[in-house]
Amino acid sequence: MSELPARRLGVAIVGLGGAVATTVAAGLEMIRRGAVDLSGLPLADATTAGLADYKNIKLAGWDLYPDDLASAVRQHGVLAPAELDLVRTELESVRPWPAIGNIKFCRNVAGREGANLTSMRDQIDSLKDDLRRFKDEGGLDSLVVVHLASTERLVDVTLPQFATPEAFEMALDADDAEIGPAMLYAYAAITSGIPYGNFTPSVSSDIPALKELARRRGVPIAGKDGKTGQTLVKTVIAPALRGRALKVDGWYSTNILGNRDGLALDDPDSLASKLDTKGSVLDSILGYKVENHKVFIHYYPPRGDDKEAWDNIDFTGFLGHRMQMKINFLCKDSILAAPLVIEIARCLDLARQRGQGGVLEELGVFFKAPLMTNGAEPEHAWPEQERRFRAWLENGAAGGSKASDSVGDRAGQSLKAAAASLADVG
Amino acid sequence: MSELPARRLGVAIVGLGGAVATTVAAGLEMIRRGAVDLSGLPLADATTAGLADYKNIKLAGWDLYPDDLASAVRQHGVLAPAELDLVRTELESVRPWPAIGNIKFCRNVAGREGANLTSMRDQIDSLKDDLRRFKDEGGLDSLVVVHLASTERLVDVTLPQFATPEAFEMALDADDAEIGPAMLYAYAAITSGIPYGNFTPSVSSDIPALKELARRRGVPIAGKDGKTGQTLVKTVIAPALRGRALKVDGWYSTNILGNRDGLALDDPDSLASKLDTKGSVLDSILGYKVENHKVFIHYYPPRGDDKEAWDNIDFTGFLGHRMQMKINFLCKDSILAAPLVIEIARCLDLARQRGQGGVLEELGVFFKAPLMTNGAEPEHAWPEQERRFRAWLENGAAGGSKASDSVGDRAGQSLKAAAASLADVG
Amino acid sequence: MSELPARRLGVAIVGLGGAVATTVAAGLEMIRRGAVDLSGLPLADATTAGLADYKNIKLAGWDLYPDDLASAVRQHGVLAPAELDLVRTELESVRPWPAIGNIKFCRNVAGREGANLTSMRDQIDSLKDDLRRFKDEGGLDSLVVVHLASTERLVDVTLPQFATPEAFEMALDADDAEIGPAMLYAYAAITSGIPYGNFTPSVSSDIPALKELARRRGVPIAGKDGKTGQTLVKTVIAPALRGRALKVDGWYSTNILGNRDGLALDDPDSLASKLDTKGSVLDSILGYKVENHKVFIHYYPPRGDDKEAWDNIDFTGFLGHRMQMKINFLCKDSILAAPLVIEIARCLDLARQRGQGGVLEELGVFFKAPLMTNGAEPEHAWPEQERRFRAWLENGAAGGSKASDSVGDRAGQSLKAAAASLADVG
Amino acid sequence: MSELPARRLGVAIVGLGGAVATTVAAGLEMIRRGAVDLSGLPLADATTAGLADYKNIKLAGWDLYPDDLASAVRQHGVLAPAELDLVRTELESVRPWPAIGNIKFCRNVAGREGANLTSMRDQIDSLKDDLRRFKDEGGLDSLVVVHLASTERLVDVTLPQFATPEAFEMALDADDAEIGPAMLYAYAAITSGIPYGNFTPSVSSDIPALKELARRRGVPIAGKDGKTGQTLVKTVIAPALRGRALKVDGWYSTNILGNRDGLALDDPDSLASKLDTKGSVLDSILGYKVENHKVFIHYYPPRGDDKEAWDNIDFTGFLGHRMQMKINFLCKDSILAAPLVIEIARCLDLARQRGQGGVLEELGVFFKAPLMTNGAEPEHAWPEQERRFRAWLENGAAGGSKASDSVGDRAGQSLKAAAASLADVG
Ligand SMILES: NC(=O)c1ccc[n+]([C@@H]2O[C@H](COP(=O)([O-])OP(=O)(O)OC[C@H]3O[C@@H](n4cnc5c(N)ncnc54)[C@H](O)[C@@H]3O)[C@@H](O)[C@H]2O)c1
Ligand SMILES: NC(=O)c1ccc[n+]([C@@H]2O[C@H](COP(=O)([O-])OP(=O)(O)OC[C@H]3O[C@@H](n4cnc5c(N)ncnc54)[C@H](O)[C@@H]3O)[C@@H](O)[C@H]2O)c1
Ligand SMILES: NC(=O)c1ccc[n+]([C@@H]2O[C@H](COP(=O)([O-])OP(=O)(O)OC[C@H]3O[C@@H](n4cnc5c(N)ncnc54)[C@H](O)[C@@H]3O)[C@@H](O)[C@H]2O)c1
Ligand SMILES: NC(=O)c1ccc[n+]([C@@H]2O[C@H](COP(=O)([O-])OP(=O)(O)OC[C@H]3O[C@@H](n4cnc5c(N)ncnc54)[C@H](O)[C@@H]3O)[C@@H](O)[C@H]2O)c1
Ligand code: NA
Ligand code: NA
Repeated sequence: MSELPARRLGVAIVGLGGAVATTVAAGLEMIRRGAVDLSGLPLADATTAGLADYKNIKLAGWDLYPDDLASAVRQHGVLAPAELDLVRTELESVRPWPAIGNIKFCRNVAGREGANLTSMRDQIDSLKDDLRRFKDEGGLDSLVVVHLASTERLVDVTLPQFATPEAFEMALDADDAEIGPAMLYAYAAITSGIPYGNFTPSVSSDIPALKELARRRGVPIAGKDGKTGQTLVKTVIAPALRGRALKVDGWYSTNILGNRDGLALDDPDSLASKLDTKGSVLDSILGYKVENHKVFIHYYPPRGDDKEAWDNIDFTGFLGHRMQMKINFLCKDSILAAPLVIEIARCLDLARQRGQGGVLEELGVFFKAPLMTNGAEPEHAWPEQERRFRAWLENGAAGGSKASDSVGDRAGQSLKAAAASLADVG
Repeated sequence: MSELPARRLGVAIVGLGGAVATTVAAGLEMIRRGAVDLSGLPLADATTAGLADYKNIKLAGWDLYPDDLASAVRQHGVLAPAELDLVRTELESVRPWPAIGNIKFCRNVAGREGANLTSMRDQIDSLKDDLRRFKDEGGLDSLVVVHLASTERLVDVTLPQFATPEAFEMALDADDAEIGPAMLYAYAAITSGIPYGNFTPSVSSDIPALKELARRRGVPIAGKDGKTGQTLVKTVIAPALRGRALKVDGWYSTNILGNRDGLALDDPDSLASKLDTKGSVLDSILGYKVENHKVFIHYYPPRGDDKEAWDNIDFTGFLGHRMQMKINFLCKDSILAAPLVIEIARCLDLARQRGQGGVLEELGVFFKAPLMTNGAEPEHAWPEQERRFRAWLENGAAGGSKASDSVGDRAGQSLKAAAASLADVG
Repeated sequence: MSELPARRLGVAIVGLGGAVATTVAAGLEMIRRGAVDLSGLPLADATTAGLADYKNIKLAGWDLYPDDLASAVRQHGVLAPAELDLVRTELESVRPWPAIGNIKFCRNVAGREGANLTSMRDQIDSLKDDLRRFKDEGGLDSLVVVHLASTERLVDVTLPQFATPEAFEMALDADDAEIGPAMLYAYAAITSGIPYGNFTPSVSSDIPALKELARRRGVPIAGKDGKTGQTLVKTVIAPALRGRALKVDGWYSTNILGNRDGLALDDPDSLASKLDTKGSVLDSILGYKVENHKVFIHYYPPRGDDKEAWDNIDFTGFLGHRMQMKINFLCKDSILAAPLVIEIARCLDLARQRGQGGVLEELGVFFKAPLMTNGAEPEHAWPEQERRFRAWLENGAAGGSKASDSVGDRAGQSLKAAAASLADVG
Repeated sequence: MSELPARRLGVAIVGLGGAVATTVAAGLEMIRRGAVDLSGLPLADATTAGLADYKNIKLAGWDLYPDDLASAVRQHGVLAPAELDLVRTELESVRPWPAIGNIKFCRNVAGREGANLTSMRDQIDSLKDDLRRFKDEGGLDSLVVVHLASTERLVDVTLPQFATPEAFEMALDADDAEIGPAMLYAYAAITSGIPYGNFTPSVSSDIPALKELARRRGVPIAGKDGKTGQTLVKTVIAPALRGRALKVDGWYSTNILGNRDGLALDDPDSLASKLDTKGSVLDSILGYKVENHKVFIHYYPPRGDDKEAWDNIDFTGFLGHRMQMKINFLCKDSILAAPLVIEIARCLDLARQRGQGGVLEELGVFFKAPLMTNGAEPEHAWPEQERRFRAWLENGAAGGSKASDSVGDRAGQSLKAAAASLADVG
């Protein structure tokens, strides 16, 4: 693997001007200049061959807003002025490519919608052109697309036009109104042979049609909805409550945040998407329906990008006695999300090299609603997710689905792929 | 295994009149009468052959106080009067056997010390007599001893008299002042061939001499210091912080509790034992020394047996940004502890049947300071502990020490033992 | 005042079967039998002549549900079975009078509505009959009505039919659909010469017409919406933030509760009434508009009558530095409310004796939305409310509206009234 | 008062290089340049004649460390580098005068102790020289001394040498070892005719001898121990609990902080002083002894100057039901303290002009242990303190000691004093 240092990975981000994306951009730049250490990057110490070096990742992408990344950083207020100063010159030189948007899918975030005026097929072609140009002009060895745009409205994934690649392509031809921008981005990536990760709750590569398409094309995809704050904590705590046989009677979760994402979630339709991905987590981990699981997200401007979650858990123990746990998480939304985005991109690129196509279930540890092969049930418990992820990272396979399963049924199956045909543009 | 329903397990408890022990006693009695369900019992659904039925467990044991268990329950205030009423008759009929105590090892809890007046050898003989009588008169198939007495002062486990069985026995003969009651109980159990679990922080079977003795005699032992509240939460949360590469800058933990255990911990010497077992947990899980890990326990009478823990965690994420998490756990000390005591006893009995002697490391999930074979390092991370424990339960072996290890290297090794010679009294 | 020991006060409660009302009923009965002390009763130590003795208060009232009070207590779960047992016989003998209800004003609480079928005038007559009978048959010296029924939908108090007594009476004659049950109860009390206190957020005696009517008739009235939990804390903390010039940037308040009141508030219309009375409190105390004051109430069954409030306050201090305070109040809704209801009734009765008619502003300390004489602005700061209340209690006047005002402008004005014509039925 | 704009107030600070003092210095400088608004300054809107304008206050003072104030600011980390930059030039030009110290009174903070080598009389003379020079060279109209040095060890204020001015002066002549530096500073100020405020918990002007001396000399003094964080909250909440007759069963308070003050408090002797001033507050407000009032302060470096307090209050309400309140205050120690220091100085200067000598009890609102005229009991309840303070500010008198007292018994008594003989140096 002596050529690896030279390996250059391009990451095309949907929503490049957003809080998370610009934190990724600034962070990579700071790392490049040695201005920060690697805290917060889960794979900082990983030695797996094939993982792109942090310093060799180049960012680009689309946004509805044309502002350069330095001015976007300023608006989001995630980074202090002094931090921005370290990398201002570099960020000033990056401007997002024109995005495709659809006001019917995300109301609260307005912006230019120039590229929208044409047909879906035209939009897709334009996205694919952007990707091809990015790879060529950047002299990049491979690409990954990560979705980081504002949350779109909830879509019914069981609609017939989403059931198969064929049905979906017909719907595309007909500019079907149920198809949102997030699906178009995913389609453009997959059909370009480029791995695609969806960090948002928007319906995108999780429709059956696109999962199947990715499988057929051998393109790894992963998602959805980055697990950074309250849901992470939930999936860390709940397995222990189950392990100790403490019966959850109710779990009340509220979030206050004041960034642009919070504003988007103030639209009930977008919020529905978010709550949907947060919803079933508990029941799945605990093995029974939690009658009183309540989740709220409130836009609360004083907090800016500093998100705060408060959880109250009521549970019953031995002899029916009641107890409570309260968790107050004062976190930073984009600071938690950005390193995960970077690792997801590196892992998707690694999977590509390993020849693993279709849904990369082993990345489930990073997501609130882990994308699964059609028909499978997601694992939500963080400990088991983490175990599978680390096993995959090391061995190329997750090592059994439960502690008691025999490890390694998939081991040996992969690793065939560093030289795999990277036929398409990615 | 058709004879199992008839299998009768006797559990001899050191500290039978205590808050935890009497909760065990009352709870088992309520279960026997069908007055409660099995919430809080981690193995309620386990189907492993050899686990004693909850309804077939009989309790007895020692205490410095001679009060019958009904009046002890009333003093502890863990159970409401209406709960006690359900099982009062049964509890009234149980009185602890006279205990062996030593005021130099536990100051705050006075009581009769009649049995102390003789030599250590005499004390041990008396304990062994108690156990033999319990088994015979109770018509029991096997015994387990669980230590639940008040926390004793910290002892230096590296003293030469604790290094080998031989050195220890010589010290016993000399009534060595460094030997505390908890060691005597452990010695009596092990030399009777009875499994021994230490739920307290006191130094007991964790001296090298007794671990080796248990190994030689083929007697399973486990400990120490039940992991029920704040430390449980700590070992659940810390692995996730590590998984997400969030660097812990400080972890401040305080506990307020108002039961007799709290009073004992108000003696700085006993507290030292407790803090000692809580101490190294974090560093071990995180892989670096947490400079500012502070743990406090305060006796706070208004709270009674309802313990409350408050944790504040400071940590650093991507680009050096700081975040905080605060956890407020309103728990019930004895309600959390009692079901673990029951499961520990059942598992020790299972190990005995399986022929597993020496330190039963796989029970580490239940303890703040997991007892290890001499020389080994304990695993503190709850997810990995839980995985190993469940694998042991199912297969008789823990299934590798890390996610990436191949599962099952120890599988098949055991299970040989249902018919194993239960030669000694237990 | 030598006849006072004999003074017997009757309190007629609207919503007699509710959680708060039955707690009042059980509590007074326990006090009568010496089973409890007087904790939680703010005037337990008050020696003001004219205050009815707690043991001489007799309860009765209306409810949509006909259940006797013992069975109502059982349903609410505020009191433990053992507590109910102390007073069960007495409570079993009390059944509410048939209520007047209106499903258009309170949807979530169904019940019999027999009395509704007639005209408003008939309904009022029936209420007045109930009161007259209560006084006569009970051998009572005086009556007070306290409103404790489920929260009704928000009503526009500026409607012309609510502007004057005359307009209101015409609207009554026309069975105006904007008139809710709470107004009918208030009207019946006032026109019976009986003091009326509104502990609920429902629009009732706070329409200008009824305030003026009470003034003309010389009947003291007070309200509205008992200040027991989060709002109490808010009005205690906010004045200190103002005193220290700490600028509130946001105040996020959420409440979880699982009692029948919580269920009623799950109807957005009823909730609107509640939030309305909670809303302006902060701005009024702080002297500026708090941009981000958010208040939520969520129905959360595991909590039962144990309400929990969580507040997060963001504020700015010297040199623009930001700080936070979080308050977690684990309270018992009815336990906090019941003693206030008792004291409000005693104070209204005292005011009646003192000849003070119209809005009794000095009781503002007990309410989230203090009822004011038409045109006046309420004082919300708890410290100033408490000062005025205590001064009124002692001297019959509140002693100036601000610390710097000269005390006593109203002193001497009253106290004329023990012998005042108690002409009407009350 | 047309000459007021010209009035120039000098504030000499003991502990000029400390976190609080340097925040005062930087803050006044920022205000002078219009770089910040007046948030956090309780008297920003006060219009009382005689209050020095914020822009006309000049700082100087003593410290054991000779560093200029800019470098001290950098060490404390209270202000961000960008904030310091605004006023760096000014702060760089200020260096503390050599202090008098005594390692027997404050262990943890070492520094030069040059001035210590001489007799106490010499030390006092040197302090008085410093003050005279400051006034003359600065062209100042008046001076105030504020004590902000590290907390000294607890001293027994009932020792005979502290009983009268005469006894104290004899002890001074004898270089009595019980006399600490804080007393020397106070003595120097009082005998210079300069008002003296003690913001620390150290024993200083609160010995009877110095209170009497201040009275005789007509010099206003105030103290002690600034009430900024947890104790402020305590004295705000407790009166409301009393008002609602909620019986406090226990109040557990813990503090974590990581600044130099925290380090000093890590010395048990200094901590004793601090806890002493925090102790009696609750009992005094509630009117009974709180059995379980626990207060802890822990040095916790990750927090720096950001202090965090966590309080848990257990209380009993109606019918003996138990409730809890938890308060988590994330505050900034020096940011809360600095504006109070400024206002205390302005008020002491105002009192001087008004001719009010001796203990200025009306400033009690600013202190954890309000200094009282010998024999009097302090008022701890924040609402009543605030009322008295605001009344004094407006009228020159506190307006009665309780809500029911007639306001103004002391009004008119003062205000005689703008032209009062400012005979001494101050
Ligand atoms: N911790 C986290 O921050 C976190 C966790 C999980 C999920 N997410 C999700 O990540 C996404 C990004 O979060 P954020 O805080 O950066 O949000 P943001 O609002 O700051 O950024 C979103 C960006 O997407 C752009 N955008 C909107 N529609 C677009 C389109 N059709 N094409 C291209 N760009 C478009 C917007 O202009 C904006 O610049 C959100 O969907 C959020 O829900 C974030
Ligand atoms: N959640 C928990 O409750 C928990 C968790 C971990 C560890 N523990 C430990 O479990 C032990 C029991 O806790 P508890 O709350 O029941 O305490 P407890 O004080 O209520 O009971 C201890 C009992 O031990 C008895 N005792 C003391 N010395 C004895 C001796 N030498 N021989 C026999 N009996 C003796 C005492 O008389 C008392 O009845 C303590 O050491 C505690 O630290 C408890
Ligand atoms: N801390 C507190 O509990 C608190 C504080 C402030 C205000 N309040 C208000 O007090 C009221 C009572 O609270 P609760 O917890 O007892 O509620 P609850 O729901 O237990 O009781 C309300 C009772 O009113 C009855 N009712 C409804 N409509 C009626 C009508 N038209 N006539 C007569 N009875 C009627 C219901 O049948 C029920 O029994 C609510 O409006 C609540 O918002 C309570
Ligand atoms: N919120 C608050 O910050 C707060 C509240 C109440 C009381 N206080 C008290 O205010 C004082 C100052 O707090 P800080 O945070 O600025 O502490 P700090 O430790 O930062 O500053 C104290 C300064 O006093 C100096 N000093 C020590 N002994 C001295 C002496 N004999 N003469 C002159 N200088 C001396 C030290 O060198 C140091 O520069 C402390 O006593 C603290 O307890 C602070
Ligand atoms: Na909410
Ligand atoms: Na503590």
